[in-house]
Amino acid sequence: MAKSTQLLDNEAFRAYATYATIVLLKMMLMSLITSYFRITRKAFANPEDAASLGKGESAKKYVRTDQDVERVRRGHLNDLENIVPFFGIGLLYALSGPELSTALMHFRIFAGARIFHTLAYLTPLPQPSRGLSWAVGYAVTISMAYRVLKTVLYL
Amino acid sequence: MAKSTQLLDNEAFRAYATYATIVLLKMMLMSLITSYFRITRKAFANPEDAASLGKGESAKKYVRTDQDVERVRRGHLNDLENIVPFFGIGLLYALSGPELSTALMHFRIFAGARIFHTLAYLTPLPQPSRGLSWAVGYAVTISMAYRVLKTVLYL
Amino acid sequence: MAKSTQLLDNEAFRAYATYATIVLLKMMLMSLITSYFRITRKAFANPEDAASLGKGESAKKYVRTDQDVERVRRGHLNDLENIVPFFGIGLLYALSGPELSTALMHFRIFAGARIFHTLAYLTPLPQPSRGLSWAVGYAVTISMAYRVLKTVLYL
Repeated sequence: MAKSTQLLDNEAFRAYATYATIVLLKMMLMSLITSYFRITRKAFANPEDAASLGKGESAKKYVRTDQDVERVRRGHLNDLENIVPFFGIGLLYALSGPELSTALMHFRIFAGARIFHTLAYLTPLPQPSRGLSWAVGYAVTISMAYRVLKTVLYL
Repeated sequence: MAKSTQLLDNEAFRAYATYATIVLLKMMLMSLITSYFRITRKAFANPEDAASLGKGESAKKYVRTDQDVERVRRGHLNDLENIVPFFGIGLLYALSGPELSTALMHFRIFAGARIFHTLAYLTPLPQPSRGLSWAVGYAVTISMAYRVLKTVLYL
Repeated sequence: MAKSTQLLDNEAFRAYATYATIVLLKMMLMSLITSYFRITRKAFANPEDAASLGKGESAKKYVRTDQDVERVRRGHLNDLENIVPFFGIGLLYALSGPELSTALMHFRIFAGARIFHTLAYLTPLPQPSRGLSWAVGYAVTISMAYRVLKTVLYL
């Protein structure tokens, strides 16, 4: 067992593990919010999901799109598009032996930016708040990718 | 070469590698099923994809959405939304030195739940079968995230 | 710090880190291309994004879908569906101690195929160019998955 925890003896890697888990949990939260809006707005994607609301034709009218549901879904997809690169590049970055303080700064800013992005999307806040929070998270990931490529480049 | 396989000397990590590969392959299978339905239903997303079915306007009528294709695509997106967190949190969980039997239980239940989820989505089975299988996979990932945060928390 | 870089002493793992970062950056580029088309085509997903183009009703007409924007978005989703499995299975493959030359061949072909896929999607090139590049990337990932399961299988 000891062997597999060696990586987690490293503080920068532990920080990565912590923040990666936090942003992945935040992304998972979007599923629950989508369900909440689908149920309260009675707007489902599949006939079988609406079946409890009525039989046959009367259920079909609940198979529809709803603005609030679609907004959460766009936020969820944006999370996938941005948190997946953070997870992947961040993992390689954490393995590249960064300074702990620099690594923490990257992870904290990314996590903060993505949490704010979700708030800005769901409220919604006027632009450019959402756009800026997206750009901050994007820039953090690019900065980590630069460090990874500088450290490990092997083409 | 030996160095890079050290992680795989650990049984819990080997179990993770096995089940992570299985669920990622299952997710990849959705692409083939989508292609199958696009071709049999003659429902394409791009004009160039439909070009072999006719020239100009006669091909354009095959650039359309189809209920069966959209159902597979929703299943595929649901896989992305759930298998990505499993892959990420599961990796960190496997590195956190869990008991082998506990880890195996998590991985097996998740893989089983996601395979059942796909069957329930594509058949489709009446609810709540799909919803329950989704919730089981979600709960497994949350349980692993809890263990990761308890073990490594470094904010 | 040394500890966490041990993995990166391995050349096959360094090659993985390099190509994984490259394809994740390529995927991130899709966000910028989407933004470019949304702005030049004036086609936004959210009312607040179009607010700078006019007030109230006059802005609402820019909340619409556009063929060019949708094409980039389909390319982006296809990246997620294919680069996520490459990242995950490729990581486990790199840890399984492959021959360096074999590993490099897998990573280079995948990266080349996905870059070509994006060019074929955005140009667009006539089929089957996009389909073939998709299939090549898919086959590379399956080949790595086969090696992972053969090496580590623990059910």
